[in-house]
Amino acid sequence: MTRIVPVILCGGSGTRLWPRSRATMPKPFLPLVGEATLFEATLARCVAGEDFAEPVVVTGTAHLAHVEAQAPENARVIVEPSARNTAAAIALAALRLPPQAVMLVCPSDHHIGDSAAFVASARAAAGLAREGWLVAFGIAAQAPETGFGYIRQGEALGDSGFSVARFVEKPDRATAEGFLADGNYHWNGGIFAFTAGHFLEELEAHRPAIAAAARAAVANGTQDGQRFHPDAAAFASIDSESVDYAVMENTRRAAMVRADMAWSDIGNWQALHAALDRDEVGNAVKGPAELVDCRNVLVSTDGPRVSVIGLSDVIVVVDGNEVLVTTAAGAQMVGKLSGAQNQ
Amino acid sequence: MTRIVPVILCGGSGTRLWPRSRATMPKPFLPLVGEATLFEATLARCVAGEDFAEPVVVTGTAHLAHVEAQAPENARVIVEPSARNTAAAIALAALRLPPQAVMLVCPSDHHIGDSAAFVASARAAAGLAREGWLVAFGIAAQAPETGFGYIRQGEALGDSGFSVARFVEKPDRATAEGFLADGNYHWNGGIFAFTAGHFLEELEAHRPAIAAAARAAVANGTQDGQRFHPDAAAFASIDSESVDYAVMENTRRAAMVRADMAWSDIGNWQALHAALDRDEVGNAVKGPAELVDCRNVLVSTDGPRVSVIGLSDVIVVVDGNEVLVTTAAGAQMVGKLSGAQNQ
Repeated sequence: MTRIVPVILCGGSGTRLWPRSRATMPKPFLPLVGEATLFEATLARCVAGEDFAEPVVVTGTAHLAHVEAQAPENARVIVEPSARNTAAAIALAALRLPPQAVMLVCPSDHHIGDSAAFVASARAAAGLAREGWLVAFGIAAQAPETGFGYIRQGEALGDSGFSVARFVEKPDRATAEGFLADGNYHWNGGIFAFTAGHFLEELEAHRPAIAAAARAAVANGTQDGQRFHPDAAAFASIDSESVDYAVMENTRRAAMVRADMAWSDIGNWQALHAALDRDEVGNAVKGPAELVDCRNVLVSTDGPRVSVIGLSDVIVVVDGNEVLVTTAAGAQMVGKLSGAQNQ
Repeated sequence: MTRIVPVILCGGSGTRLWPRSRATMPKPFLPLVGEATLFEATLARCVAGEDFAEPVVVTGTAHLAHVEAQAPENARVIVEPSARNTAAAIALAALRLPPQAVMLVCPSDHHIGDSAAFVASARAAAGLAREGWLVAFGIAAQAPETGFGYIRQGEALGDSGFSVARFVEKPDRATAEGFLADGNYHWNGGIFAFTAGHFLEELEAHRPAIAAAARAAVANGTQDGQRFHPDAAAFASIDSESVDYAVMENTRRAAMVRADMAWSDIGNWQALHAALDRDEVGNAVKGPAELVDCRNVLVSTDGPRVSVIGLSDVIVVVDGNEVLVTTAAGAQMVGKLSGAQNQ
């Protein structure tokens, strides 16, 4: 049985973890949880061995230096000439692999607390992928989140997973509360497994233009050591679409495995706080800090000492020439700050 | 009529405005309100002219460089060889002046919003001082403060002021509330007027040891340009006592003038916030900052931009390698922080 090929998507920038995450040093390459960066931890979860083959990283020129500094030497790197969202990125990787290869598509900027659970879900997903399914990871919903897509599970597929009844885009609050109460809805974690051949068949069926342009970009691309450079002109013509929208929501072969693996998209500072080890009153500190009469406070500083008195549910971030102080609830507005907008 | 001699006391360090105020750059020498430092503003309120003579500054060696950088050239400076509190500091100045000189003793680290009211009170106090009174400034109490001493006014002394019924040391909360309701209690602003001769008479009567040691320190002191250096050995033998405790609480010639002059001791960050110009929702900003959904927030930064989301009644201070974030109520605990303690 062929090993699973990790396909690590390393694009985008993100402003919601500003000022730590910057255009020049974006979220995947930061050690936000523990000592490893999110990108390093993603690679470490599916390191080459019994289950996994050498990884393929799909990234843009802006992130290439960070990728090559943090990825293992055996990683193959596909350098996107421009950003065209996940359908195109996955197509590039699929076209560089044998049709029977099982791809495990992983974002590079999420946190997964339980690696063993991740590997178990990956094995189950790979089994379904070999049977011809396009498999999404369904994360057990912990809260009525309105920032995630949801997956409604369908019929059981043996012990491995479920067919997908439907994908649901980001719901409103009331709908999300209904999903949580229902129990059959799961967060769409953005992790997918399928064979390269089945993915390309479905892309061809539902987005033939993307498939054709990606094929041309790969056919006219150039290899440079471990790097592969698709043809820029061909790739630039591709529509920007997510894999969810272009393929997963359209295919009749969508399946889901359950993944209860302490997952977080670390989507903002509040989410990062929740993913960190906290003391008995909920405080978490990275860097020099003194907290007096504080509860549920996160301090993250790259050097200056931070002294906090009397606050609850507050986040303080110091990074270079920027200081952010926000309520936990305000964390979702960080990306709209002038500093985050004009990096 | 001789002009009033401003005697500016410039000692102590203070930790309650840390991290902006530091051992090496203490509170009087910082531009906390407006462009001028508190020390400069103190001198500007009683600049030499019709009412005031050239000032005398009493300071320690630690502050001497700051004093000489910010004081006018005509200022005489008495350099205390060691810190011995206000009774001794005032005695040094009194011994360097003619007995009939009216001294107006002023702390150098307070804020007075209404300079005209200050001058009016100074004139009234000087009139009483020439009649032989030792005059304190009574600040109209605005709140049941437990951090100030209080003055209970006695009989009216013409239109100029009142005799002092008694001085009260820092009261507890319930007592302070009673004082506020009573209306005859005033904050002791630490500003005093008396002639040099009357002050020394009272010091001699109630603290003869301090008077004798100060006399010896001055007799054996040395002049160096505008600087006067009292004898270190003689001065070191003096007990540290406040002028309130050593003289004002004991003399039978204590008087009080009312001073309604927008006074603040800028005793902590909350007090500074109250003394600053604030916008319509109570925010005050010094340095680069962006405030979103904030009320009654003070930001003071010496360089880094501070972005704040969703907070009320919070103070954020950035100074060099220190960041302070405190509730308004927590501001009184700033001096107890490790950073403030171990400067």
